[in-house]
Amino acid sequence: MKTQPLKGMRDLLPHEQALRDHIQAEILATYRAAGFQRISTPILEDLENLDKSDGGDNLNLIFKVLKRGDKLTSALQSGDATKLADMGLRYDLTLPLSRYYAANRASLPTPFKVIQTDRVYRAERPQKGRLREFVQCDIDILGDSSPNAEVELIDVTARALLRIGFTGFTVNINDRRILRAMLETMGFAADTLDSVCISFDKLDKIGADGVRDELTEKELPANAVASLYDFLQGGDFSLEAVASRCGDASLADDLRYVLSASEKVANGRYGIAYCPSLVRGQGYYTGMVFEIVCPQFSGAVAGGGRYDNMVGKFIGQQVPAVGFSIGFERVCGILLEQGYAIPGAKPRLALLYLPDADFADVLAKAERLRAGYDVTVLPQAKKLGKQFGTLEAAGYQAAAFADNDDIRQLGQKK
Amino acid sequence: MKTQPLKGMRDLLPHEQALRDHIQAEILATYRAAGFQRISTPILEDLENLDKSDGGDNLNLIFKVLKRGDKLTSALQSGDATKLADMGLRYDLTLPLSRYYAANRASLPTPFKVIQTDRVYRAERPQKGRLREFVQCDIDILGDSSPNAEVELIDVTARALLRIGFTGFTVNINDRRILRAMLETMGFAADTLDSVCISFDKLDKIGADGVRDELTEKELPANAVASLYDFLQGGDFSLEAVASRCGDASLADDLRYVLSASEKVANGRYGIAYCPSLVRGQGYYTGMVFEIVCPQFSGAVAGGGRYDNMVGKFIGQQVPAVGFSIGFERVCGILLEQGYAIPGAKPRLALLYLPDADFADVLAKAERLRAGYDVTVLPQAKKLGKQFGTLEAAGYQAAAFADNDDIRQLGQKK
Repeated sequence: MKTQPLKGMRDLLPHEQALRDHIQAEILATYRAAGFQRISTPILEDLENLDKSDGGDNLNLIFKVLKRGDKLTSALQSGDATKLADMGLRYDLTLPLSRYYAANRASLPTPFKVIQTDRVYRAERPQKGRLREFVQCDIDILGDSSPNAEVELIDVTARALLRIGFTGFTVNINDRRILRAMLETMGFAADTLDSVCISFDKLDKIGADGVRDELTEKELPANAVASLYDFLQGGDFSLEAVASRCGDASLADDLRYVLSASEKVANGRYGIAYCPSLVRGQGYYTGMVFEIVCPQFSGAVAGGGRYDNMVGKFIGQQVPAVGFSIGFERVCGILLEQGYAIPGAKPRLALLYLPDADFADVLAKAERLRAGYDVTVLPQAKKLGKQFGTLEAAGYQAAAFADNDDIRQLGQKK
Repeated sequence: MKTQPLKGMRDLLPHEQALRDHIQAEILATYRAAGFQRISTPILEDLENLDKSDGGDNLNLIFKVLKRGDKLTSALQSGDATKLADMGLRYDLTLPLSRYYAANRASLPTPFKVIQTDRVYRAERPQKGRLREFVQCDIDILGDSSPNAEVELIDVTARALLRIGFTGFTVNINDRRILRAMLETMGFAADTLDSVCISFDKLDKIGADGVRDELTEKELPANAVASLYDFLQGGDFSLEAVASRCGDASLADDLRYVLSASEKVANGRYGIAYCPSLVRGQGYYTGMVFEIVCPQFSGAVAGGGRYDNMVGKFIGQQVPAVGFSIGFERVCGILLEQGYAIPGAKPRLALLYLPDADFADVLAKAERLRAGYDVTVLPQAKKLGKQFGTLEAAGYQAAAFADNDDIRQLGQKK
């Protein structure tokens, strides 16, 4: 039998899990203090829901669950490979939340300020070194069309990162509506804009030439591609420069508001920046998009945006919605590298007992010691000095004994 | 698109999630204070590992994940339906833990006292009303062959339940080795005992006649079936009565020890009982098995046992192991029904703002109020009295205002 976890998935050692539990508790405490409420949804979703969810490239990365029993038999007999699966592992927490809101909205407040922190799955190629199972920490506001919702999500997410010791980060913000207006003015057809945006989002990675080449490959109109390439090479990426190419300068009002209010809220604790090339990969974003970048990591540590049409796909009635997701794996990876120490944990004590001890008495003594320590009961080794060394290496601060009242502090000689 | 979650899976509303998070934190705190360390493993496991895992009936309930890309194409061309899937969703946390210990044992202490609390999956028939996705809270001790490990797991699990307000429960204990010896003495062949035990475990549900019928259907020797049926109808199920049928009365020594030590540890706070019909469903248990039953629920709220051969399947070397798992869904279901109130939560306050408010100032005021409250910022409604009613119904204890210093306590008139 194979001892390693599946490719792209991870076993977490105790010290990694302890860090993650602490970080998650700190993030949750920030979210809860801001009046957000946690929910959860199943990891599996109906496969048709996932397929229709505007998830962009992620739709190609869905792990599908084989049908069972008679349904599998008929699917096999039909010879149609697309009918073999009926459920899929979610690739993010936004589609499940939209379905959840549609199903449960009668029991939920308006606006609904919601927390999700849970596992998601993407069948990335293992050689890319990307995880196939990872945790996202999301907050979303449903039922509020005001740009104050964006300002609040940015504030709360940034405070969560500050609380766990992140500093020096910047929140990049854009509005897809402005970008789309500019692109339409340049001559791209409305039904090609999603595709143009997905290429444009790669500006940081592939440069202006790469964007032009990718758009040309997609057989988009040459004059429009040339016009965008000209803009990209021009170098003035200010909001006013972009707004002036939109036809309607008032389109930038919401973004101007979010930038200036967020700047005031940030009050110098972190950066707020307009980023005209920002699109974020998901196809479902309809307006504002944002991400958090920090010097310690090359990609974004958080990303989000407004997705006003997603709930409507379920109930035929538009519900404004906006969300911000912390990439939990990235954040924990950075903190582990930095040697983050969990504050305020109780000291760990090993209560050692000899073979002739009354084990019920040992457990009772352990329970009394738990007022001041996390107490593990362990058989006492013959070579006590060696056992102290092993305990110290394993992170114990003290040892006590079932048969006397000594408490030995470990590691004091160092 | 479908708004309901998949059959047998659940959306959790905010109040349900809040209860679960609290209960889980209480259980984890009990486990951690006893020196257990949390880990986690992926939800997906290699399908061959799962298939070879001695999981009893659960092996028929595995959700399988379809292969992808070229591997799916070859599997389809082979015409062999068993080759379509390469991964499966875990049906419990014991197989993944055994694999984890095999892979990571060089980095882990001996004995390894470990916590897992996470989701597992079983493709139960939906009409049975059983969940297909649910959470288990497990503690295990690996690398300790002494029956003290059993005593400790029972103590710690029972204290976790007491801490969350469970009372009046009983820990039922048995040892499969005694049962197997008795059954062999009765004339069942060694290689049929797993099958006999699985039927015998159903004694509470189907009675002595049902056990006899099931064993007869399985075509087991009529004289052995008759001998067991005779014992079941005899009515003396004491440990000494069973031990006397084993050929070797010393086989009962470990169980006698665990029963008496656990009785002393329990000290009247909960019951300890010998249960000769107890087998627990899993095929991988090798010795002691136990479960916790309480008058509020017809099944067990926790179950576990010793599985000394599981890690050996991975590394070819036996590692003693024993675990105890709390059925988190059942526990939370019982507490929800009882109207369990989460103690010590901060009061919830809504900070209301008018359209002309400076939203950055609103957020700053919210942050100041968070010293004493969980604070949600919300637009102020035109009909303030109605809004107070809505807020109170949604669980808010107070309302404050962005433009003055009043704090209105909600629900005082009641």
